[in-house]
Amino acid sequence: MASQFLDKALPGVQSLKPYEPGKPISELQRELGLDDIVKLASNENPLGPSPKAQAAMREALEDLALYPDGNGFDLKRALCEKHGVKPEQITLGTGSDHILELIARVFLGPGRNAVFSKYGFAIYAIVSQAAGAELRVADALPEDHPAMPYGHDLEAMAGQIDENTRVVFIANPNNPTGTWVDRATLTAFLDKVPADTLVVLDEAYYEYVEEADYPDGQTLLANYPNLLVMRTFSKAYGLAGIRVGYGLASEEITDLLNRVRLAFHPNTLGQVAATAALADQAHIDKSIAMNREELAKMQAGLRERGFKTIPSVCNFVTVDTGRPGREVFQDLLRQGVIVRPLDGYGMPTHVRVSVGLPEENERFFHAFDAVMGSATA
Amino acid sequence: MASQFLDKALPGVQSLKPYEPGKPISELQRELGLDDIVKLASNENPLGPSPKAQAAMREALEDLALYPDGNGFDLKRALCEKHGVKPEQITLGTGSDHILELIARVFLGPGRNAVFSKYGFAIYAIVSQAAGAELRVADALPEDHPAMPYGHDLEAMAGQIDENTRVVFIANPNNPTGTWVDRATLTAFLDKVPADTLVVLDEAYYEYVEEADYPDGQTLLANYPNLLVMRTFSKAYGLAGIRVGYGLASEEITDLLNRVRLAFHPNTLGQVAATAALADQAHIDKSIAMNREELAKMQAGLRERGFKTIPSVCNFVTVDTGRPGREVFQDLLRQGVIVRPLDGYGMPTHVRVSVGLPEENERFFHAFDAVMGSATA
Repeated sequence: MASQFLDKALPGVQSLKPYEPGKPISELQRELGLDDIVKLASNENPLGPSPKAQAAMREALEDLALYPDGNGFDLKRALCEKHGVKPEQITLGTGSDHILELIARVFLGPGRNAVFSKYGFAIYAIVSQAAGAELRVADALPEDHPAMPYGHDLEAMAGQIDENTRVVFIANPNNPTGTWVDRATLTAFLDKVPADTLVVLDEAYYEYVEEADYPDGQTLLANYPNLLVMRTFSKAYGLAGIRVGYGLASEEITDLLNRVRLAFHPNTLGQVAATAALADQAHIDKSIAMNREELAKMQAGLRERGFKTIPSVCNFVTVDTGRPGREVFQDLLRQGVIVRPLDGYGMPTHVRVSVGLPEENERFFHAFDAVMGSATA
Repeated sequence: MASQFLDKALPGVQSLKPYEPGKPISELQRELGLDDIVKLASNENPLGPSPKAQAAMREALEDLALYPDGNGFDLKRALCEKHGVKPEQITLGTGSDHILELIARVFLGPGRNAVFSKYGFAIYAIVSQAAGAELRVADALPEDHPAMPYGHDLEAMAGQIDENTRVVFIANPNNPTGTWVDRATLTAFLDKVPADTLVVLDEAYYEYVEEADYPDGQTLLANYPNLLVMRTFSKAYGLAGIRVGYGLASEEITDLLNRVRLAFHPNTLGQVAATAALADQAHIDKSIAMNREELAKMQAGLRERGFKTIPSVCNFVTVDTGRPGREVFQDLLRQGVIVRPLDGYGMPTHVRVSVGLPEENERFFHAFDAVMGSATA
């Protein structure tokens, strides 16, 4: 009786482990009775969303009796202006992980495989396995790589592609490593991928990257019809709580994704918030500037303390604590600071720390010093 | 080149047609330049959500930088109180169609089949086909059935079940027919269904039904461990725009659904709105009372004009116009009234009209009389 339905679930689901999200502040409050908690666990923008996005949502609170616009007319129009694409090239989702799910549901299944990098974003494996596809994990760049330790190794990824590979997932930059791939390396890879294999370029942290060689995926769409570029409003746009992401691709690929996408994503407030947020570049600029400064301080602070960090172009730092990362995570929780353990990523001694407000980052270092004590590496 | 990716899509997706949602007001405004539009196309609550839900969302606008609580702690706690279930029996979704999608992704695929009724809610077929399952459509009760024309015929549905049937979908009451199944008929059916076949009881319109024999699905969960009951905040709760639905089932089934459910559904505002809405039963009572009165007037008005309606216990009426329903729909659009054509449901001369505010329903009749002219049946 107990496993009656487990046996009837699809094979990929039977062994599936759900994603472990960052611990919510409210949960830690309940568990430890703490009041003053800093969450640096999910790479949100500590400045929050644009006030324009909040105003748009406040106004739209009057319109919630009606279903959302299933076609997302206004948001798509704003995205067309931003990216120079047609509405027929845009797939709107409730967060960009929703787009990943649509991709898996269109292209992945038994007898098909998906290629991604070791240390690549966890949802690639989850949606692929849920669909019953084979997971092909390419080795990452070595831990002692001078520029991109733990980074994507696109040559290794190309080596994993075969005739049953339907989707390749590249996070650029990647979470949880903070590493990135330059334009020449990316286009060399794209030139090698078969034309009927979809390459998903996940640019969730796009806005934070300021490297000259960092490729803007949308500029590659015209040359590579098998490319899908993903963006999100959950990071630099500060709207993680309302869940909006999107994909840009050819009209053919977009049509297929929209077939399995049920209507009404994102919801009404997500659509109006994202549309308004696109009109406030000043807020993004301010967020990026603050992150630039605080990221540098956080990387320097960790290195000064003798800890090895993975060089990051994002809004987080991944650091080797030299101790079981889950223990460090637990110890920091008791100090009221939430970070992210990475044992689930096969990085047992690393934790990932989001870049917060200056005072939040100071609070992190205070807690970190207390927790690590004399145990500096 | 043109069909490169179509060929690579999963077989079920290749022939999939997306759901046709009710036409949004903004779309009709753009197309016809009309200002004063009444939408009676998607069975929303014309009174909108509880003011308490709006207040809760207004307050939570400050918290949107952070990801939603992936476990939906507060909302689940409120639902546990309402339904007398454990949190481990609740699956939260971005609308109840999200729950349907999760069910298909866990239990349906090639070599498996799903059973539902002719004229059953369209999403059952869409999620089942997207998953690659065989669709087994049971005949409905006959058009001249005295009480439930076009209604679910549970005996016919039982006859469709075989050893590969993994899911049976029952809408009670059903959209777009407004028909329902009584307790004795339902339990007789449940007694016949194999214990390892999931029965989904979709109670999206539960709050509107006032028939004495109407079964409350949650009371059957203890006796039927293969039952999943679905509810939504999109109808009587007036929150269609924010997208919240949920499923109640055994812990085992709930665990499986939550494996494929990505974190962060519903979003933060959906969670707080639904939690607050549950605490305002007076708003539901008021909504039901208004619907009772206006539904009766709308059914009577259509019958007085000589049109046959399907007896409805919901917040809409489905009427046989005696003309191509899509033409009537188009004609009404030009009058600024949006209803729903049902040709996609195999009901070519019916349209479905949602029960609105008294003045909206008067507006509908005015437009309907203008459109149907002397062409009354």
